[in-house]
Amino acid sequence: MEQNTGEQISANAPAPDAQAARQAGEHIRKNFASDNVAPVCPEILAAINEANVGATPSYGADPWTTRLKARVAEIFETDAAVFPVTTGTASNGLALSALCPPWGAVLCDESAHIDNEECGAPEFYTHGAKLRPLPSADGRIDPALLARALNGHADRGFHLSKLSALSVTQATEWGATYSLEHLREVTDLARGAGLGVHMDGARFSNALAHLGCSPADMTWRAGVDILSLGATKNGALAAEALIVFDPARAVEMERRIKRAGHVWSKQRFLSAQLLAWFADDLWLRNARNANEMASRLARGLLRQPGATLPYAIESNEVFVVLPEPLVQGLEQAGYDFYRWTTPPGVEGVLIRLVTRYDTTPDDIDGLLASLSAVA
Amino acid sequence: MEQNTGEQISANAPAPDAQAARQAGEHIRKNFASDNVAPVCPEILAAINEANVGATPSYGADPWTTRLKARVAEIFETDAAVFPVTTGTASNGLALSALCPPWGAVLCDESAHIDNEECGAPEFYTHGAKLRPLPSADGRIDPALLARALNGHADRGFHLSKLSALSVTQATEWGATYSLEHLREVTDLARGAGLGVHMDGARFSNALAHLGCSPADMTWRAGVDILSLGATKNGALAAEALIVFDPARAVEMERRIKRAGHVWSKQRFLSAQLLAWFADDLWLRNARNANEMASRLARGLLRQPGATLPYAIESNEVFVVLPEPLVQGLEQAGYDFYRWTTPPGVEGVLIRLVTRYDTTPDDIDGLLASLSAVA
Amino acid sequence: MEQNTGEQISANAPAPDAQAARQAGEHIRKNFASDNVAPVCPEILAAINEANVGATPSYGADPWTTRLKARVAEIFETDAAVFPVTTGTASNGLALSALCPPWGAVLCDESAHIDNEECGAPEFYTHGAKLRPLPSADGRIDPALLARALNGHADRGFHLSKLSALSVTQATEWGATYSLEHLREVTDLARGAGLGVHMDGARFSNALAHLGCSPADMTWRAGVDILSLGATKNGALAAEALIVFDPARAVEMERRIKRAGHVWSKQRFLSAQLLAWFADDLWLRNARNANEMASRLARGLLRQPGATLPYAIESNEVFVVLPEPLVQGLEQAGYDFYRWTTPPGVEGVLIRLVTRYDTTPDDIDGLLASLSAVA
Amino acid sequence: MEQNTGEQISANAPAPDAQAARQAGEHIRKNFASDNVAPVCPEILAAINEANVGATPSYGADPWTTRLKARVAEIFETDAAVFPVTTGTASNGLALSALCPPWGAVLCDESAHIDNEECGAPEFYTHGAKLRPLPSADGRIDPALLARALNGHADRGFHLSKLSALSVTQATEWGATYSLEHLREVTDLARGAGLGVHMDGARFSNALAHLGCSPADMTWRAGVDILSLGATKNGALAAEALIVFDPARAVEMERRIKRAGHVWSKQRFLSAQLLAWFADDLWLRNARNANEMASRLARGLLRQPGATLPYAIESNEVFVVLPEPLVQGLEQAGYDFYRWTTPPGVEGVLIRLVTRYDTTPDDIDGLLASLSAVA
Repeated sequence: MEQNTGEQISANAPAPDAQAARQAGEHIRKNFASDNVAPVCPEILAAINEANVGATPSYGADPWTTRLKARVAEIFETDAAVFPVTTGTASNGLALSALCPPWGAVLCDESAHIDNEECGAPEFYTHGAKLRPLPSADGRIDPALLARALNGHADRGFHLSKLSALSVTQATEWGATYSLEHLREVTDLARGAGLGVHMDGARFSNALAHLGCSPADMTWRAGVDILSLGATKNGALAAEALIVFDPARAVEMERRIKRAGHVWSKQRFLSAQLLAWFADDLWLRNARNANEMASRLARGLLRQPGATLPYAIESNEVFVVLPEPLVQGLEQAGYDFYRWTTPPGVEGVLIRLVTRYDTTPDDIDGLLASLSAVA
Repeated sequence: MEQNTGEQISANAPAPDAQAARQAGEHIRKNFASDNVAPVCPEILAAINEANVGATPSYGADPWTTRLKARVAEIFETDAAVFPVTTGTASNGLALSALCPPWGAVLCDESAHIDNEECGAPEFYTHGAKLRPLPSADGRIDPALLARALNGHADRGFHLSKLSALSVTQATEWGATYSLEHLREVTDLARGAGLGVHMDGARFSNALAHLGCSPADMTWRAGVDILSLGATKNGALAAEALIVFDPARAVEMERRIKRAGHVWSKQRFLSAQLLAWFADDLWLRNARNANEMASRLARGLLRQPGATLPYAIESNEVFVVLPEPLVQGLEQAGYDFYRWTTPPGVEGVLIRLVTRYDTTPDDIDGLLASLSAVA
Repeated sequence: MEQNTGEQISANAPAPDAQAARQAGEHIRKNFASDNVAPVCPEILAAINEANVGATPSYGADPWTTRLKARVAEIFETDAAVFPVTTGTASNGLALSALCPPWGAVLCDESAHIDNEECGAPEFYTHGAKLRPLPSADGRIDPALLARALNGHADRGFHLSKLSALSVTQATEWGATYSLEHLREVTDLARGAGLGVHMDGARFSNALAHLGCSPADMTWRAGVDILSLGATKNGALAAEALIVFDPARAVEMERRIKRAGHVWSKQRFLSAQLLAWFADDLWLRNARNANEMASRLARGLLRQPGATLPYAIESNEVFVVLPEPLVQGLEQAGYDFYRWTTPPGVEGVLIRLVTRYDTTPDDIDGLLASLSAVA
Repeated sequence: MEQNTGEQISANAPAPDAQAARQAGEHIRKNFASDNVAPVCPEILAAINEANVGATPSYGADPWTTRLKARVAEIFETDAAVFPVTTGTASNGLALSALCPPWGAVLCDESAHIDNEECGAPEFYTHGAKLRPLPSADGRIDPALLARALNGHADRGFHLSKLSALSVTQATEWGATYSLEHLREVTDLARGAGLGVHMDGARFSNALAHLGCSPADMTWRAGVDILSLGATKNGALAAEALIVFDPARAVEMERRIKRAGHVWSKQRFLSAQLLAWFADDLWLRNARNANEMASRLARGLLRQPGATLPYAIESNEVFVVLPEPLVQGLEQAGYDFYRWTTPPGVEGVLIRLVTRYDTTPDDIDGLLASLSAVA
């Protein structure tokens, strides 16, 4: 529960005025706080500008949204129902509400964003379903623990919330990525017990770039029913795609979205972002850069005496334990990142460094140089 | 209830392909379907582009949002709590949830958007409060009927939902505008009975331009507790401001917004739209143009034999009853607008024509000319 | 909305101490306030005492509940799902939650208990569905108005709450009873438009006794999907039967009931009441007496100069308009009843007099005599 | 989560018919399945019969309810708000809804009934609050783990559900009882962090009898804000008292109860049960017998080779681990009880034996004799 709370307390969050002054130039190069501190990538901003022509029907009856649906069908090799929304929290909540009744329960990892960072959005959207977190080493569901949680639940009668869905996060909150085998193993267990499967894909593109497989292989072919596909952390202004692989599961989803106030009247500007993100593999190119920068950073950190990396680097997040003086040194050098809750018994300070579509090798080398300078 | 349903069935909604072809040029000039079919006005789009520099803290800790709060305090002459959100439906639902408990009821007009066009969003956000519509001539609450509804409700005990809020729409769904006196009369009645007051200001700027009073006079000085201020219908891409005049009413509003998935990670792009909308009175200039075009249109229609205008023209909506042949003539001439539910006993067809920030005198004259040509 | 609120303000409600003193004897004979001021009828109390033997499985796995299900199947000539609950409000809320999604709407009469007397229970149980009241003369849905409300709603898209259920009250709040033809006419309209049908049967047995038809004819054969069958107003201690004629509609109803806290651990005492109520036609015998006493009362009132009866006497409620002096006279004579909201323009005072399973001819004649004495 | 699920699968649950046959006589003497398989104790049933006189105002305006409130004030030495309801699940849900907002979280023990046995009732009543279970040895909150959970949560901002309440169970699901010191220690921590405190008192009277302290000492003087006081498991037909020690916390509780369908129209029969339960210390006499029988049973089991008792015997539940043959032997001898989930690594089978107000020494000795006979 604690591990994700860093999001709210940036070690180096400047005062608004200072921020204003530091927006351009140097600051961005030293900002490793999160992927969503970045600006919109040029191709997507251009698409928004290009979409600003003429009148078009509102509330999703626009041609951009029509094209988006065709594009997603192409990319995911299936005829899915697609709903563009503004935030990942909304997308996750809507997805779970289609998989879990109010008297149901959703199994997820103890580090899951849906349970720790969304202020009860899944409970709001599902009208009170429970989240049942399972412990894990790196945010990936342990098949043995999942099997134990599922075992016999069906016979326990109406006193227990009905286990109705499994939610997996790809890539996980710790930057790890499920292999297709691991993914299939847990979705088979869940589906075998009658549960639906949701994938929180806030960093889906990073995981996809890491595995190098097809979007279809990492989703419906691996047993995923609904995907919350995030573009905002990887270059968009504000755009997520809620993708329901079994259209039967999408019945009345428009009404779910409308009553939550998530239908844009000028939806062309939401769909246009996603179309640009998918165009010419922009989503994958952005993800690859972020991932490569994370690996470069990790390699450098491993050469740093006293640094330990608790998790595999399989997307664009680097968690590293450093001695307090080094952490303070980075902060004093103007670097922006989050101090995480350091696990009991661990020497030093756990920090999170996030790389982005716009992070450059120089940015990484600069941070590593600062670190050596401090050491 | 029926009168607003036209929104979904444009008389002339072209097929997506046709739409794509007709986006630019002629089509927009002939589109009177709604204010939200328009593109973003240039100043606001420019502001989005300008905001796309550097890294900035996410989730509202950015300097744009800080500046927005100061700007609103200036414009409304009070220290209000301000929350930028994406849609009017979300803004209305959030506002009502702060004014009405789950076991409460909200009094509103029978034509209110909150009761007819939001698929139960107020019920979703309030966790089940009731909306109690009151009949009216033009969408403005009748003080006598309001007094009757309030009379003695407090003594009726726990079997009845507790009347907790009054929601007024300024300008109304029929294009009428409350005078300050009328507004004060109904808010006095509501507050006297212990109710809070919400204003649905989807077309607030149009009403403000019509009355020529100050934003403070039309809101908190007139007894309004919470305002849903809409910018999207008047030039923005997707931006509404939820303004809570009594900060005490805003307790935990961030959590209400977060769990609904309405906190943008890159909120600078939401706040930047509103800052640009307020800059140099853009919001009022846009509203004045839309209002003037509506008056020009109304004047022309009144010269048209067989045309009757059931409502006063006090914002940017023109409702007109025309003989069926004239309506079909306009449709065949390529005009886009909605056929409304024609009241029983009325001869002809009731249609709605909406003018916008970007409607020109030529657009109006063109429509009037087409009409004369058909007649 | 106002008409039912009398329930909370008895014209003659004595102070608790006074009540204690007046419980036995004279007071009950003069109490016409409601059917639920009565004690439990002897046969049902005896059944509770008889059920108090030995240990039995809890939460509905007891043999009384098993027998109840068989008994209901017998009485209603179909294999329905039966759930005993404590109150009519719970039964109605649960029924509607199975017929209407959170984004749906329920059509009902403007006088419906579900909309006026349950403090938003239907909204609580359905997670925010809307109730859409239709006006009527006597609480019976007008087929023409129903047809108008249903007309074209299906095409209006996701901005509107989905019309999902019709709720009819048999007998109505005004004491009127639907004929089978009337009932069938409105259920045909509703089902033709894809709505489910709920019957609020708080006074079902009174209506059944009035029509003299079979329980099956007045429910599933007449197009009713779910019945809230009330026994408490007609002799039980606290017992209602939620009867779902299409078991498919009852999926997960146990969980709906459990999470509302309406599953009794010692459910034998709930089922035993209903078994006794059905035994030897007790439910019908009780209802017939109440109905006959209402007719006797009505006949007497009609002979009273200045008395007018606005509604047909078709169950156990008598609404009568009397001159204020006569009403005060009855109150001073120690009679307990409710003053209702007198419709605008009506001379005199509208009061409600309710007869019960234990009302005697002497009770009626006593009231009529007091009235004559006052006049 | 698993430990409580036995409730639904009695090792020896007879078929309904068999049950009917075995209701009287021998069966009850051999039934240790739960306290709620018992009949109503004679004093309470008599009170229900005595209350069945005359007419009385409905919905809680009766003199029994008035007397109940005075009686509770006397017993708890404070002027509390008292609401009689039917079930503990409803009482718990209502209590939590008054302590925790929809975006809040409730800390409770991992074995808590509210999290494992109520099918999401707390989430239903709170409109989606989270339950955050803490691990423990015997169902009593560990102050160190509680302190850790509370630490710094206030600074974590709106991304996290707001920790709003602590729920303690007295006696716990494992039969252990909080000492006043332990209770005070955890409530101090909770209140110090701004949380409200709820006590699930399904077996409150058993804990009270065990500690021999006053009701006030074990509740509001120990930092408890709201108590769910259960009578059903200890002799009542169906009656629980929701007691809010700070009346300010009880605002609109009637509306919460009404909209959940938990207001009885004939509430005299609910209040009369509780009045009889409190009269002449019946509640304590019943609890003492159940506790003594549990101790007698435990002492006997400890003399039984191969039997181990994992938990202290501090109320009326006895958990014992026995070799499988002994367990089967008891079942074959006609004993009714639940097999619990045996913790990993434990030899034998964990079963639960519950004693009641009507359990006799002979019943205990009979079970012990059967056990010896099998061994």
